[in-house]
Amino acid sequence: MRCQVGIIGAGPAGLLLGHLLHRAGIDAVVIEARSRSYIEGRIRAGLLEQGSVETLVEAGVGDRLLREGLPHEGLELRHEGGRRRIELTRLTGRRVTIYGQQEVVKDLVAARLAAGLPLHFDAAGVRVEGIDGPRPAIHFTQGGEPRRLDCDIVAGCDGFHGIARDAIPAAALRILERVYPFAWLGILAEARPISHELIYARHHDGFALATMRSETLSRLYLQCAPDEDPANWPDGRIWAALERRLGAVNEGPIIQKGVTGMRSFVAEPMRFGSLFLAGDAAHIVPPTGAKGMNLAIADVRVLAAALDGFFRRGETRLMDEYSRICLARVWKVQRFSWWMTQMLHRYDAEDGFEHHVQAAELDYLFQSEAAQMTLAENYVGLPYEV
Amino acid sequence: MRCQVGIIGAGPAGLLLGHLLHRAGIDAVVIEARSRSYIEGRIRAGLLEQGSVETLVEAGVGDRLLREGLPHEGLELRHEGGRRRIELTRLTGRRVTIYGQQEVVKDLVAARLAAGLPLHFDAAGVRVEGIDGPRPAIHFTQGGEPRRLDCDIVAGCDGFHGIARDAIPAAALRILERVYPFAWLGILAEARPISHELIYARHHDGFALATMRSETLSRLYLQCAPDEDPANWPDGRIWAALERRLGAVNEGPIIQKGVTGMRSFVAEPMRFGSLFLAGDAAHIVPPTGAKGMNLAIADVRVLAAALDGFFRRGETRLMDEYSRICLARVWKVQRFSWWMTQMLHRYDAEDGFEHHVQAAELDYLFQSEAAQMTLAENYVGLPYEV
Repeated sequence: MRCQVGIIGAGPAGLLLGHLLHRAGIDAVVIEARSRSYIEGRIRAGLLEQGSVETLVEAGVGDRLLREGLPHEGLELRHEGGRRRIELTRLTGRRVTIYGQQEVVKDLVAARLAAGLPLHFDAAGVRVEGIDGPRPAIHFTQGGEPRRLDCDIVAGCDGFHGIARDAIPAAALRILERVYPFAWLGILAEARPISHELIYARHHDGFALATMRSETLSRLYLQCAPDEDPANWPDGRIWAALERRLGAVNEGPIIQKGVTGMRSFVAEPMRFGSLFLAGDAAHIVPPTGAKGMNLAIADVRVLAAALDGFFRRGETRLMDEYSRICLARVWKVQRFSWWMTQMLHRYDAEDGFEHHVQAAELDYLFQSEAAQMTLAENYVGLPYEV
Repeated sequence: MRCQVGIIGAGPAGLLLGHLLHRAGIDAVVIEARSRSYIEGRIRAGLLEQGSVETLVEAGVGDRLLREGLPHEGLELRHEGGRRRIELTRLTGRRVTIYGQQEVVKDLVAARLAAGLPLHFDAAGVRVEGIDGPRPAIHFTQGGEPRRLDCDIVAGCDGFHGIARDAIPAAALRILERVYPFAWLGILAEARPISHELIYARHHDGFALATMRSETLSRLYLQCAPDEDPANWPDGRIWAALERRLGAVNEGPIIQKGVTGMRSFVAEPMRFGSLFLAGDAAHIVPPTGAKGMNLAIADVRVLAAALDGFFRRGETRLMDEYSRICLARVWKVQRFSWWMTQMLHRYDAEDGFEHHVQAAELDYLFQSEAAQMTLAENYVGLPYEV
């Protein structure tokens, strides 16, 4: 097989990149290690910045998103009995939209298959070769048969645990990382959401987050230990903890339960020779800022524009600028995600000084419209450079 | 001797408190361990929030301040060749004023002596007794003679190294503290300032700050090691380091050189029985936010109002609320001062992650008016609760 761009990974980054390249007349092949049902069923992030929504709509894959997505014009912070609505839309003129990552994936898979574009699921043993030169190749096996895809460019969109980043020589990559001393225990429950909007709560017991997927489906999170075993959290304990931290909950059958680790991670640069990393393959943010999928979409905007310039006009400027442009946003988003995380979580190891600064930060945020505006403009998404 | 309020310390806090109490008809005695020439010559902070200026003017001790103070409507941030003016006045409608702490002290001493009010310099061996009851006393010696001042209330305004805080039983105080792994090497130079406004620079070598005292007198600071010996910094080395960090300097004879440690410190509560702490006796902020003297003035506003209520109307509500009201501001100011400090200094021990977050914070601040507004509104001073 031969194509211009070999894309590893059929998550939002890889699929959107394939879609944008197709619209630009650049042929690409998407290779995914998992099955279609797996990637379409995987529950992940669910909040899109306005720019992410616009990107998907402009790319022609936003019809169902516009129909079924739930626009939010604010969010609520709670702290020691106090409540403060951050009026996202009044402050910024923009809004965010709740729409599950798996729904974005479903829409992009459907669009790709409808257009008859190559998308290989269940690709085993994926590896790349020749990324330090102009003729890289992707090897994998499918149904036991070895396959080889020759291409000009490889896009590594295969997530944090993927193989693309590891294909870059260690000496050529710098890894910058922060691991947090806590995780999130997340549940999906058949229960009426306590609020239409997201509620972020800082409580003495730890952080809690209430969000919704529909009028009858609640997604709720509790700060827990990083190595927490969900088996230690029977349903009754979860509801009691959520009620303490959030003030009130609507109980219902818990249909999913899992622990999400918290990590800030950046690999830089995001390019090595003919391999470009995008999305979680290059960076992870803690989920508190709801930025993972949005950052992947921002990367892909730049990469699609860079490859458009390269394949259609022979320009390399934007390819050479790819890493710099993406990382400028990545680090601002890392900062914001870290800020939200450290402000809202309980750090057991810290002394009283940090606790007081945390409380003072929330106290200030509750009173200052400028501070609320900094939260809001980051939450709805900073402007794109490309 | 007998008075209603015994004030320990003739810094801005103690002297302003004495002045405000006098205007309220409450008699106070100020006791100072140092000489008049020492406290009037001691070079310290020199930046007044607009609220501090208004407090001094309303108290009738602002004539020379209004005449000689240098109002500033902005400050400049520099980072990796980039410059961003924070337009304090355009953003907040308020401004700050450069006026040395020793000038505030001179004005308050002059007003106190002109009114014939008691002010005892060179008081040795100051100690308090009975602060857990309604009849405390201050003991000291003057010219070898033992003295005793009986009062209803003792105000501990004697700074970080004073005796007032130590008079509170350790079990009744909580100390919260952060020591930074760097200090400031400060110089006073007979040189034309490089700018009328303050310049805060983050540089790979470390932080630098350029400020001015007059058209011919510059005050400049360099980040240095916490245990730095100024003898290691001959003038040539200082000017070379300043030039690298600030881009350009105007050299001139250095007439003063010293190292200032960096510390965040809070003792809480700020009251024990009949002893009230105010200013540096209760809290220290790193100088990056220029808040030390302003926080002392904010404390004194609350304490003067509380004592007015107590002595003139027998009300204890504000005395009981004194610590809570002051600490709400103190912690917001601690947060701001920490934020400015961590954003602008070089941390040798930190890994690349922190460096990138720091740079991203400045990058965001340079671009976002909302972020500039949060800096500006804290810098000119948050609203007073009392």
